[in-house]
Amino acid sequence: MIPRYEVIGIVGLPEIRQGDDLGRLIVEAAATHATPLREGDLLVVTQKVISKAEGRVVRLADVIPSPAALAMAQALRRDPRLVDLILRESRRVVRMDKGLLIVETHHGWVCANGGVDQSNVDLDCAALLPEDPDRSAQGLRERVLQLTGTDVPLIISDTFGRPWREGLTNVAIGIAGLQPIQSYLGARDPAGHSLQATFLAVADELAGAAEPVMGKLNRVPAVIIRGLAVDRGEGTSKALLRDPSRDLFR
Amino acid sequence: MIPRYEVIGIVGLPEIRQGDDLGRLIVEAAATHATPLREGDLLVVTQKVISKAEGRVVRLADVIPSPAALAMAQALRRDPRLVDLILRESRRVVRMDKGLLIVETHHGWVCANGGVDQSNVDLDCAALLPEDPDRSAQGLRERVLQLTGTDVPLIISDTFGRPWREGLTNVAIGIAGLQPIQSYLGARDPAGHSLQATFLAVADELAGAAEPVMGKLNRVPAVIIRGLAVDRGEGTSKALLRDPSRDLFR
Repeated sequence: MIPRYEVIGIVGLPEIRQGDDLGRLIVEAAATHATPLREGDLLVVTQKVISKAEGRVVRLADVIPSPAALAMAQALRRDPRLVDLILRESRRVVRMDKGLLIVETHHGWVCANGGVDQSNVDLDCAALLPEDPDRSAQGLRERVLQLTGTDVPLIISDTFGRPWREGLTNVAIGIAGLQPIQSYLGARDPAGHSLQATFLAVADELAGAAEPVMGKLNRVPAVIIRGLAVDRGEGTSKALLRDPSRDLFR
Repeated sequence: MIPRYEVIGIVGLPEIRQGDDLGRLIVEAAATHATPLREGDLLVVTQKVISKAEGRVVRLADVIPSPAALAMAQALRRDPRLVDLILRESRRVVRMDKGLLIVETHHGWVCANGGVDQSNVDLDCAALLPEDPDRSAQGLRERVLQLTGTDVPLIISDTFGRPWREGLTNVAIGIAGLQPIQSYLGARDPAGHSLQATFLAVADELAGAAEPVMGKLNRVPAVIIRGLAVDRGEGTSKALLRDPSRDLFR
């Protein structure tokens, strides 16, 4: 059998607003404009529409920056209201230099600006990451199951930078219904080498696979991964967080 | 139009040996066991088979470790012959701690063990990265063009770790016939935000997309990406190297 899978963009979704039934909108747009969801599909949904549906969008005019945010914003030459939002989303500043603010979010993700992002929201607004992206993913998975009778594993993606390499890639920040890491623990390759150190971050790879279809201007906030057998199970995105004690770059 | 693409594993390739005509083997295996290559396809080929075809496999019994390698191997509790190979492949040690050796290769990639890898090679051997992966990619692209009349963009992938996140992902270490980074320079989102800082590492995302089909035990060293419009052009993988002066984590 030829191993293969398809990456299918769900077009035709409306602009998402707080309180929208995102599960229904995705199920209907898939059926109407792309292809109905079916058994074996996996969904990748961008964080931005989750945050919008959950009301995690802040008007900058409503932000009164703290003295700490004001001082840091001056050093970074950034908008103090944005810096204030970033600090509220963070438990630790990892690096602050060259206009960049790399932080560890309350979830544990290390990323620029704590996931606070102004693209694809209204001009005077910023979107925050969902409070608990695994819970968001689980909620969406349950809604899709209710509406379609199909249990579809779900990945919430965001676009992060990384050290050493230019360019951003999509990664997984929330999951439901799959194990995000494929382990080769105990496996041996054809030559007999133990692959005990080999753990593949499949959820990140699939979040990345979805990105070229999503684009940044295409209005494709959800993508179907069809035909790939993933490791089903009640996984958590926390498995993608490296323990700081095992991380040489904090 | 629905944006979509397919990821198709090329099965049926034989074990690759030095001097093999890898282009012919891939073209023939695709046509015989998967699907013939056609216009618009992109190929992702794992570094391991490139290195094997190019004779970049070393017998550990032939390695006489340097005094520096012996000392480092003792500190790391690693095989001194492997450490010697890693140092030969490196221009700089980035971190050496907890048994890990993170280096910058002569190409500029920052990765564990300088890409020196014992999986899927004979038991007493180690594979090195290709000397010039872009040249390897270009050679393979030209061979495929000769044999099929189709100009297929090509990505050479390897499996790297990264800071902060658990699990390895496939990334691009060599390319031919595409721009590895999609730039949104000058673009604006629907709300009017400038996306000037947005550069997507599409080559890395597609290398990652190929990995779940390749696996580590499936003997699928080459994958077709079909139906995705990539930014064609004479790009170089060097565009994926972050300038150290702009990198906060070296």
